[in-house]
Amino acid sequence: MELTGQSIIGYRRGAKTSTVLNGFNPSTGEALPPDFYSASETEVDKSVQLAAESFVHYGRKGGKGRASFLRSIAENLVQYGETLVERTVLETGLAAARIRIERERTCFQLRFFADMVEDGSWVDARIDRADSARIPVPKPDVRSMLRPLGPIAVFCASNFPLAFSVAGGDTVSALASGNPVIVLAHYSHPGTAEFAGTAIRDAALKHGFPEGVFSLLYDSGNDVAQALVTHPLVKGIGFTGSRTGGTALMKVASFRSEPIPFYAEMSSVNPVFILPNALKARSDVVAEDLHVSATLGVGQFCTNPGVIVTMGDSGEFVSRFTELMAKKDSGVMLNRNIAASYRRAIFDRSAQPDVRVRWTAPSAAEISQNVCSVGTAVFEINAQTWLANRVFQDEVFGPATLLVHAESREDLLEIGRRMDGNLTATILGTADDLRDFSDLVSLLETKVGRLIFNGSPTGVEVCEAMVHGGPYPATSDGRSTSVGGRAIFRFTRPVCFQNFPDVGLPPELQESNPSGIWRMEDGRHIQPAARTR
Amino acid sequence: MELTGQSIIGYRRGAKTSTVLNGFNPSTGEALPPDFYSASETEVDKSVQLAAESFVHYGRKGGKGRASFLRSIAENLVQYGETLVERTVLETGLAAARIRIERERTCFQLRFFADMVEDGSWVDARIDRADSARIPVPKPDVRSMLRPLGPIAVFCASNFPLAFSVAGGDTVSALASGNPVIVLAHYSHPGTAEFAGTAIRDAALKHGFPEGVFSLLYDSGNDVAQALVTHPLVKGIGFTGSRTGGTALMKVASFRSEPIPFYAEMSSVNPVFILPNALKARSDVVAEDLHVSATLGVGQFCTNPGVIVTMGDSGEFVSRFTELMAKKDSGVMLNRNIAASYRRAIFDRSAQPDVRVRWTAPSAAEISQNVCSVGTAVFEINAQTWLANRVFQDEVFGPATLLVHAESREDLLEIGRRMDGNLTATILGTADDLRDFSDLVSLLETKVGRLIFNGSPTGVEVCEAMVHGGPYPATSDGRSTSVGGRAIFRFTRPVCFQNFPDVGLPPELQESNPSGIWRMEDGRHIQPAARTR
Repeated sequence: MELTGQSIIGYRRGAKTSTVLNGFNPSTGEALPPDFYSASETEVDKSVQLAAESFVHYGRKGGKGRASFLRSIAENLVQYGETLVERTVLETGLAAARIRIERERTCFQLRFFADMVEDGSWVDARIDRADSARIPVPKPDVRSMLRPLGPIAVFCASNFPLAFSVAGGDTVSALASGNPVIVLAHYSHPGTAEFAGTAIRDAALKHGFPEGVFSLLYDSGNDVAQALVTHPLVKGIGFTGSRTGGTALMKVASFRSEPIPFYAEMSSVNPVFILPNALKARSDVVAEDLHVSATLGVGQFCTNPGVIVTMGDSGEFVSRFTELMAKKDSGVMLNRNIAASYRRAIFDRSAQPDVRVRWTAPSAAEISQNVCSVGTAVFEINAQTWLANRVFQDEVFGPATLLVHAESREDLLEIGRRMDGNLTATILGTADDLRDFSDLVSLLETKVGRLIFNGSPTGVEVCEAMVHGGPYPATSDGRSTSVGGRAIFRFTRPVCFQNFPDVGLPPELQESNPSGIWRMEDGRHIQPAARTR
Repeated sequence: MELTGQSIIGYRRGAKTSTVLNGFNPSTGEALPPDFYSASETEVDKSVQLAAESFVHYGRKGGKGRASFLRSIAENLVQYGETLVERTVLETGLAAARIRIERERTCFQLRFFADMVEDGSWVDARIDRADSARIPVPKPDVRSMLRPLGPIAVFCASNFPLAFSVAGGDTVSALASGNPVIVLAHYSHPGTAEFAGTAIRDAALKHGFPEGVFSLLYDSGNDVAQALVTHPLVKGIGFTGSRTGGTALMKVASFRSEPIPFYAEMSSVNPVFILPNALKARSDVVAEDLHVSATLGVGQFCTNPGVIVTMGDSGEFVSRFTELMAKKDSGVMLNRNIAASYRRAIFDRSAQPDVRVRWTAPSAAEISQNVCSVGTAVFEINAQTWLANRVFQDEVFGPATLLVHAESREDLLEIGRRMDGNLTATILGTADDLRDFSDLVSLLETKVGRLIFNGSPTGVEVCEAMVHGGPYPATSDGRSTSVGGRAIFRFTRPVCFQNFPDVGLPPELQESNPSGIWRMEDGRHIQPAARTR
């Protein structure tokens, strides 16, 4: 596939406008051809209008058609082979092996949602049948199910060029449940975006879906983002990025007269609590595991363990962890902005009072504007310092870890109590610890989307039970997850049909259950005939 | 029970502050004793603090305890007998029979949610078991379920002193799923609020729940509302009222640094579309049914059919409907503000260009400040007038109906296309009409929470499938419903446990399924042993 640099507006290519952006090789500092052209105001509007027009038809297409569409997207992504991998490596500095795994994950996600919508039971169909004899008033026939919202705008993540970008989680959630999608490419990997966007466009064409089911827009600035978030026909937003970016968009969205679902996954320090028994019995293994988790992908994971809280004698753990972090080679971050932010954050943190700098990589050679190579960092403070200064709740995006030492059980609980919303919290200990610190677990449960016991926060399994979300400021809406089966709900709402004759109902609610889905009928879960799943 | 006029702060009575409000008899214009005392800033904060403290314990109480609590509330409401009914009649001008039915509905709702949380399957428990042999990385054990959010603030509705007020829908949804609740009483029925609040307080005491699970606050102004909506420990809001009130609170909420779920059910004109075959075959019956729906409770229902769109020869229907509306006796509205707003709206609508006033009740005698008696009104316009002026999308709260005549099928579709979000839309016709106008039905489906065929929008059945919600501006968040089984989701979020030993898990997620609930295990719906429901 030859990159064109043009937006994809429905089934057409966008114009070659005068405002361009380029991919950028973070390893060499070179700009990458071709030029990518910012979408014009008219093109943004056109993409949303097309999406709105396609919605009535696409939203009512049965799940089987949508499943086949999603699988075709995965096939197309696979067919690009190494061409795609090479481009993504160039644009992101991530290793080829990592990109291949990320593509597998992206395709798995597409197929996972395809299976779900082919099955169809996710719509939570409910039927309460009429009772004309009921006293004092007859009971009507009431049936409801989840339905899509309309055009959804998706903003790509810098750190997952495939799995949380053009054909990533939010796009799949939205398309699977019947919503058209308009994606804004991330400036950091525009070429990768064109591959994925073309994969979706081609799949939509192949399935004969109405034009507008998908569009991909480029922008060198913020105009397209603003236009999408405020467009009256956009009915939901998915964003993955920084807290600065997320809160800025939330502010723009707050000027809408019509509030819409706005899912921003923003920032998380993913606290790890090492309880006394774990510290005592296996500080070596813990240090090894955590340093791997903390440096994975140059620390550029939303689930990076940014804060590690210990209680008890942590000397051995701290030495071992610091030693491992210091040994870690420097790595190339995704782009100049991210590398610059990381360096600034390391500088700022080092300068905070009562912070003990355990380790920072020498940085003289890295100050160059065009090179994104950075090293690890380890800071240490005590619980009182953490409690006294909210700055320690801020995420440092990159391979930096803050060690917090709690003197007492009360310190530990107070940290739990004062902890901001996070995507995850991890507890390392024994089963006895879990019982002895059940108050800490109860507290943490109210602060995160996912609690991990004796594991690492990095690695987000795509499965029915996953929750990748959490209370603000980890996300803008803690009721949702951006990964896993529950993510199909994010761009839906329930719609109810009262006293409709069978022919007027969607198949999912018809009396004979032609879709063969699980339903709740008259208050009972009813297993469809001839199926066991 | 003797009314005290004091707020209920946890298990204590609020202070007798210097700012008071009184109930008001809308039939006579008399203020009603006793004085009710506005909660102080300190009391608001205290009630929220207590709620937050109680949350960790209450939120983790099993469903059986909460079910028993909800049933006790219903018992207490019943035990007040006619004392409660008499007070509510005095404060609202609603008929005693209506209040008795509303109490039954309120108790039914409490028991409906009690059954649901006793059953426990609503938590949507999902289990994905580990696979340590998986390549390239072992699969972790991942389990998740819905959990409560924390302290919820509930704002009472004027028009449902019981079913959408202190012990009404939002309170029940929140308490059932494990959230503490702070209710702000409606100024229009403070005595009724004290009955219901005492019913909840007494039930909480009886069950030994921690103080703060419930509080009831009074206010003669807006200070308490503002304080509740902006309190950092409040984690969700339920509101039922006017669009003015709802959007004002949404604006206040937008100043929070932490966004929280905000469910305002605000306004709806509940369009009714009479299709040609219905108009031809049964305009008499339709006119009879719709006039009953339009005047029920002096038109003070959120599902009141405010706009009726006809296509075809509507002469007979218009005459008959107008005749029935004109015959209807005047009625007493809930309070002076509502009556004044209604009279102003009738005046304004009569003055709009191209509006034909079919009927308005003589109003000379009703202008008095203290009397809330009003009559019906019928206006008529054509589709072009409706399409040209957005004012016709505004709700007139009361027994007024706007008839809109569409000349053509295209007019009808254009009205559907341009229609704002509403709670309901009703289609009157034959099964053939449903097929012939499937494009209209598809359009309307994207605009409402509930579509009704050959019925009335008033009457909202409490059942698993009900959706009482809809796109903005009908509500602030169309993803939810304030009535029915799905309302249990509104104050919840999913929480995930990864690699937890069984003893550390909530019972709903433990391997042996001790709660005996339906779960999704490894992607399959699993029926619990020894149960059929």
